Amino acid sequence: MATLIEVGDAGDPRLDDYRDLTTADRRPDRPGGRGLVIAEGVVVVRRLIDSPYPVRSILGVPRRLAELAADLAGLDVPAYAVDADTMAAAVGFHLNRGVLAVADRARPPEVRALAAGAQVLAVAEGVNDHENLGSLFRNAAALGVDGVLLGPRCADPLYRRSVRVSMGHVLRVPFAELPGEWPNSLHVLRAAGLRVAALTPAPDALPLAAAGLAGVRTALLLGAEGPGLTPEALAAADLRVRIPMATGVDSLNVATAAAVAFHEVMRSVR
Amino acid sequence: MATLIEVGDAGDPRLDDYRDLTTADRRPDRPGGRGLVIAEGVVVVRRLIDSPYPVRSILGVPRRLAELAADLAGLDVPAYAVDADTMAAAVGFHLNRGVLAVADRARPPEVRALAAGAQVLAVAEGVNDHENLGSLFRNAAALGVDGVLLGPRCADPLYRRSVRVSMGHVLRVPFAELPGEWPNSLHVLRAAGLRVAALTPAPDALPLAAAGLAGVRTALLLGAEGPGLTPEALAAADLRVRIPMATGVDSLNVATAAAVAFHEVMRSVR
Repeated sequence: MATLIEVGDAGDPRLDDYRDLTTADRRPDRPGGRGLVIAEGVVVVRRLIDSPYPVRSILGVPRRLAELAADLAGLDVPAYAVDADTMAAAVGFHLNRGVLAVADRARPPEVRALAAGAQVLAVAEGVNDHENLGSLFRNAAALGVDGVLLGPRCADPLYRRSVRVSMGHVLRVPFAELPGEWPNSLHVLRAAGLRVAALTPAPDALPLAAAGLAGVRTALLLGAEGPGLTPEALAAADLRVRIPMATGVDSLNVATAAAVAFHEVMRSVR
Repeated sequence: MATLIEVGDAGDPRLDDYRDLTTADRRPDRPGGRGLVIAEGVVVVRRLIDSPYPVRSILGVPRRLAELAADLAGLDVPAYAVDADTMAAAVGFHLNRGVLAVADRARPPEVRALAAGAQVLAVAEGVNDHENLGSLFRNAAALGVDGVLLGPRCADPLYRRSVRVSMGHVLRVPFAELPGEWPNSLHVLRAAGLRVAALTPAPDALPLAAAGLAGVRTALLLGAEGPGLTPEALAAADLRVRIPMATGVDSLNVATAAAVAFHEVMRSVR
């Protein structure tokens, strides 16, 4: 049972994890960054509590803490009850969702084991936009993707904005950086029996529906909107697939394109 | 050939279409609204110029107008060249894309004719979020959807934020309000030979891949994220389809779900 503690002073050191949130969520390897995982709002806080990330504390207005009562019952951490003004003064801006939770980062899953048990994985290269990455995790969660592997130049999935845009699903979908030299590092996936399919708008790639992905264990390579996958990543894939698109249209958002491809791979699984 | 006119005074009445942009793009039927169509940035301005909407003028910093030189060559409207400060003073905020264009609204397409020639249409009910609606148009354009019909309680696709999020594709994909009493008004689509398929997360709906949509002329009914389609709209559809999703995940964003469904309907067409 979480311990409910009323706090009336925004300067109380027990609120330090929440202080000046715009910097508190920086990666531990960045200046001023502590790498805390921060969840905002009832739905996402609930997902954090259900996740493997060790929760440090909760901070919220009484009404929101009451909504979370059942979730807090099994949790042995402090829950700081504050009014909206104290909360705003501590975090540095007005936060209208009324509740936050902070957790430590956890050890990522072992890539070999993740790949061995996976039907579908997403592999991101250069997806450096926090919102696109968050949306990608939301879509991965919805469509039953088993995990996300991060190649070079990706954003931090645990950055506060990614967590929020993902609706907390970055806390549920296993992810890890792919170790080793990119893109040779993809071999670990192939060794686990996954076919590596690169999603690209290139006209000579196979149309998604003709690529025979349905039901095949697949690692789907995804590049950033705009530049797309590097030539090295494309060359390292077993096949290249495209979503047939109307002429004169740039492309789909990377998370949307990924959703279409995830559905295609999963279409015969469920 | 657009006439290049240098303007040094932000108060110049020739810039009135751009004044205080946060209100200038309101619908004509709303207080203070003039219902102008406003395009921001080189890519979207180019799409506006290529669209059926009658362009009134262009406003931009010299560098951006130079990028548009080829597009402006066939256009008989004034192009106002200003510096960035004058532009910011006229529109009411700093606009870092550096170029704007304004057009009048155009008469919408006739629904019966649009339906008669369509392979796939999207029909939105209650999609009242400008960004979701803009994304929906972007995805519709990319996946070759022939048009979007607006049922009750939808946002204005020509609102500035929708235009921007759609990357200008609301200016290319034909759309119209569906006339008549909702949802009986859907009969006009059925009369045109389209099958009306409602997209819903309901567990008893048909999985998308099993619904036999591929290659069938379809009007795809889409509801808002959260509430989804009303019972009346669901009852008026010929069939209900769902995207198979992992348990415990709320839903996909409406524009993302639509993209998956559009791809499914189009998979045997291209």
